[in-house]
Amino acid sequence: MISWLGRHGSGAESPRSRKRTASLPVERVSIEAIRPEPRAVIAQAAYLQLGAFEALSRAAGAAPDLHAKAALSAAAGLVLAKHRALFAELERRGVSPADAMAEYRPGIDAFYELVAGADWYEALASIYLTSGLLDDFFSRLAAGIEDGGAKVSAVIAGDSGTDAIVALLAAGMEADPKLASRLAVWGRRLVGDTLLVARSALPPTERTAEHRIEPVLTELMAEHTRRMDRLGLTA
Amino acid sequence: MISWLGRHGSGAESPRSRKRTASLPVERVSIEAIRPEPRAVIAQAAYLQLGAFEALSRAAGAAPDLHAKAALSAAAGLVLAKHRALFAELERRGVSPADAMAEYRPGIDAFYELVAGADWYEALASIYLTSGLLDDFFSRLAAGIEDGGAKVSAVIAGDSGTDAIVALLAAGMEADPKLASRLAVWGRRLVGDTLLVARSALPPTERTAEHRIEPVLTELMAEHTRRMDRLGLTA
Repeated sequence: MISWLGRHGSGAESPRSRKRTASLPVERVSIEAIRPEPRAVIAQAAYLQLGAFEALSRAAGAAPDLHAKAALSAAAGLVLAKHRALFAELERRGVSPADAMAEYRPGIDAFYELVAGADWYEALASIYLTSGLLDDFFSRLAAGIEDGGAKVSAVIAGDSGTDAIVALLAAGMEADPKLASRLAVWGRRLVGDTLLVARSALPPTERTAEHRIEPVLTELMAEHTRRMDRLGLTA
Repeated sequence: MISWLGRHGSGAESPRSRKRTASLPVERVSIEAIRPEPRAVIAQAAYLQLGAFEALSRAAGAAPDLHAKAALSAAAGLVLAKHRALFAELERRGVSPADAMAEYRPGIDAFYELVAGADWYEALASIYLTSGLLDDFFSRLAAGIEDGGAKVSAVIAGDSGTDAIVALLAAGMEADPKLASRLAVWGRRLVGDTLLVARSALPPTERTAEHRIEPVLTELMAEHTRRMDRLGLTA
């Protein structure tokens, strides 16, 4: 079983094939069946995009050359546009975005500090992997919002300039093969903290009933593994 | 006479009324009469917008509350859009933006370090005052580009989220009256370095013939004074 906090490695791709999963008649829900509180989900997703934007801006500022700076600035612009769209979505619902996001600020700020990385490449890997996982999760969760969920989900799932980040990471690893093993460790370390952020966005009843949410975790981990694969790394 | 490096204060608003200016039959050019090299002007303007974007992103990251963070992030998005438009304009002209901007990077990076400010409010004042002056200057200079100058000029003159920055500065000065005198000094200190950036963008012949460019300086200083006025400060 994949847990929010447990280990998840080679088995993440096909846990359905495991005996325990196949034999236990567990009541499962797809994440879309969760009806989340729109304000909470959108505010968290909006603040997460803002954090990703800040991380990208910092990485753009620290870029070693202008090609990288331009690529990361463009990515920052895409992520900021996602933040702004979610911000506007809160306003449209009569919610003060700043007030709604404030509740989640301490936790999310602490998360982004944890995953900031020791150098530029770790920072890039963090942005790619944590935003990837969180966008996957929040776009699924937002789809369950009764009024306008599909739209919010599409915003969150929108392009974050990922291709450019992957290209920069690939170039870095080609130039320095040692970087790959460091990023592989780093990529695995990020998962736990990122899943905790996702978990905290679930309604309390779902949060404690982990078996109900396991299929979602399985999918999230499979997608994380695909992102690591794209970097040529083992998840 | 207003010089690129000299003192400019109370007389900046009306130097035409001075006796010397009125009596000397100096040949003057309006800045639009300068036919600048498109690649050079657009690349410098693009990189300046990128630097302003980075300064705004840093200020957003350091914002004391989410209202300020949201306002500054929105401003960063506007400035980034200006950078992206100028970047695309270079590409449209068959110029590699990264290569074209690289030449100006050391000088502009050094400029943004000089005007970074000692704290958040000085950083905001810098962004408002230096971007204001440089957008004024480069939008005028770009208007003289023979092919498509009006479009480039309009991009540079576009909204940079100025109102939000002014509001944050005003709130800061209301809460701490000492801040106003500090920002007044800071605002005056910024001008020299900012004018040097503008000066370096002029073709060499114009750069040394300062008397030909004086009307432009006069206008730039008058607009700087208006921005200082908006902050309730004496230029």
